[in-house]
Amino acid sequence: MKNKYIKKEDGYGGQATRRLIEEIIIPVVDNPAADRMDDSALLKVKTRNILFSTDGYVVKPLFFPGGDIGQLAVSGTINDIIAQGGEAKFISAGVIVEEGFLIDNFKKIIESAAAEARSAGVEIVCGDIKVVEPGAADGIFITTAGIGERINGLFRDGISPRDEVIVTGAVAEHGAAIFQARNDILEGTLEGTAVIKSDVAALNGLYGTMEKYSADIKFMRDPTRGGLAEVAMELAEMAGMSVELSQKAIPVKDWVKGLAYITGIDYLYLACEGRMVIICGAGKAEGIVKSLKADGFSDAARIGEIKTGNGASLKTAAGGARYLTSGEIAQIPRIC
Amino acid sequence: MKNKYIKKEDGYGGQATRRLIEEIIIPVVDNPAADRMDDSALLKVKTRNILFSTDGYVVKPLFFPGGDIGQLAVSGTINDIIAQGGEAKFISAGVIVEEGFLIDNFKKIIESAAAEARSAGVEIVCGDIKVVEPGAADGIFITTAGIGERINGLFRDGISPRDEVIVTGAVAEHGAAIFQARNDILEGTLEGTAVIKSDVAALNGLYGTMEKYSADIKFMRDPTRGGLAEVAMELAEMAGMSVELSQKAIPVKDWVKGLAYITGIDYLYLACEGRMVIICGAGKAEGIVKSLKADGFSDAARIGEIKTGNGASLKTAAGGARYLTSGEIAQIPRIC
Repeated sequence: MKNKYIKKEDGYGGQATRRLIEEIIIPVVDNPAADRMDDSALLKVKTRNILFSTDGYVVKPLFFPGGDIGQLAVSGTINDIIAQGGEAKFISAGVIVEEGFLIDNFKKIIESAAAEARSAGVEIVCGDIKVVEPGAADGIFITTAGIGERINGLFRDGISPRDEVIVTGAVAEHGAAIFQARNDILEGTLEGTAVIKSDVAALNGLYGTMEKYSADIKFMRDPTRGGLAEVAMELAEMAGMSVELSQKAIPVKDWVKGLAYITGIDYLYLACEGRMVIICGAGKAEGIVKSLKADGFSDAARIGEIKTGNGASLKTAAGGARYLTSGEIAQIPRIC
Repeated sequence: MKNKYIKKEDGYGGQATRRLIEEIIIPVVDNPAADRMDDSALLKVKTRNILFSTDGYVVKPLFFPGGDIGQLAVSGTINDIIAQGGEAKFISAGVIVEEGFLIDNFKKIIESAAAEARSAGVEIVCGDIKVVEPGAADGIFITTAGIGERINGLFRDGISPRDEVIVTGAVAEHGAAIFQARNDILEGTLEGTAVIKSDVAALNGLYGTMEKYSADIKFMRDPTRGGLAEVAMELAEMAGMSVELSQKAIPVKDWVKGLAYITGIDYLYLACEGRMVIICGAGKAEGIVKSLKADGFSDAARIGEIKTGNGASLKTAAGGARYLTSGEIAQIPRIC
């Protein structure tokens, strides 16, 4: 590619667009469906029960400690399919980019999207690029959609009291990393902080546990926007029960706690982009957590349980109870 | 909805987002999958051979004579699935909107997206909303993805000389409408022009002909960005043959010709958003055109044929030949 910047012609759908696709995208997103450059991709699925999901990504900054918008756009949609009980198989990507965007950065983003898909066993099979005038979009936006195949037997039973709540890893790292990156809080600048890396990752490592414990897992959701608190509140509302989390049990890194302490942000509301909240039947958390740890989710923990009543609450480390309320309060915008 | 404008909280994924979805989107996009507000939708497809497509929409202006970005985002992705030989079944929509966007306009766009889906027999099953700061996006961008079921028997044979070229309706109306709207060329301002309406429409009306003539149809593509000329050139390159179009046979409305004449824009390069180019075996065009006309495609016509050689050309009304070259020349940006 001779050009240093995205030109408006790159979005006309003509020769420049084809060149952009052939020179940058095809070599990286290496699969037969994408190669054909057709209007849509012909796919073969193993089951007629499929899952379909979409999310738009507008994260700022585009590159952040631990990842970038390309990786996030792929893993985020994969995780939405997994949360609904599917194995993610195919991804589409619609890119909106402003004229003048650096081709080198464009390339890096496509490469990291492709790498994330590859490592998660997912094919990027179709895509689209639109170029808008300088300033008409903030750099680059990516909207992905995904197709997954349903894992048999999952989510057979409804949620009931005494069900247990699990999280697959330490929380709030994505939100904290974005906050830190955006506010130029660098290592050592503030006592107790380090460069926090986002937890962004596709959760395909969960498939083993999902299949093994398909009779026991009742619900899953990835705690993205609104964090663990938002998932707990939505779950309580949906189930018509109360969700009681234990502060002591929630895995969270010291440096995330430090940042939260210094800035006054509640880490329970900070987004994860590589964690899953799992609800399982009473007494089943121990086995599931063990299975998760064996599959590399070393911080996985049982963090609470379902009770009669309503709303979400936190049993604090000091032994008190704090009710979680919905995040009308301004959180961090454009974290994903 | 009490608010007049989209607020940044509407994109946080918390209570404001849920309110926006529950009050504006669910009542309009009325189907069980969307109602559940899950991370992804569980769907049942009839065949394991599915088609998957995505496109981003950044059209400017958002409302134009004949349609708006909501209708366009739905019909465009439906048409991409149809072009590949599928019946469109499910659509996802990822919306990126700037803070301060008028709720009334947001509503109109969602309503026209939903209406287009309904009339095309397609369900909008999942979606996402991201809100960015004022000015970080130009109003609203919509990226849709679609899933279709393959129609059996289509595209069995490769393209060969003497195959015939059909277009399902008059060309260039979408591109001309956008150009006219953007340049405030109003009815009567210039001699020979009227308010040109976009041809934007889902092409589900083609299913009957596609099924009836599945043994004869060899290729389809909707002439969007780059218009009829771009499709002819791509087809010639793909097939390793030449595509000869007849200027006299190409259906185009007088007022589109008028606008083209006055502005110097070549209408062969102007986008359609509700037309399909169909390649069929020798001698089959007559029956297909008759079938199309019977199904309401009153301007459908046989417009050319495939020959040995390469490149795309136009037999002019005066009897000459003009070679079509790729549209590196600036066309109209953000027409879709």
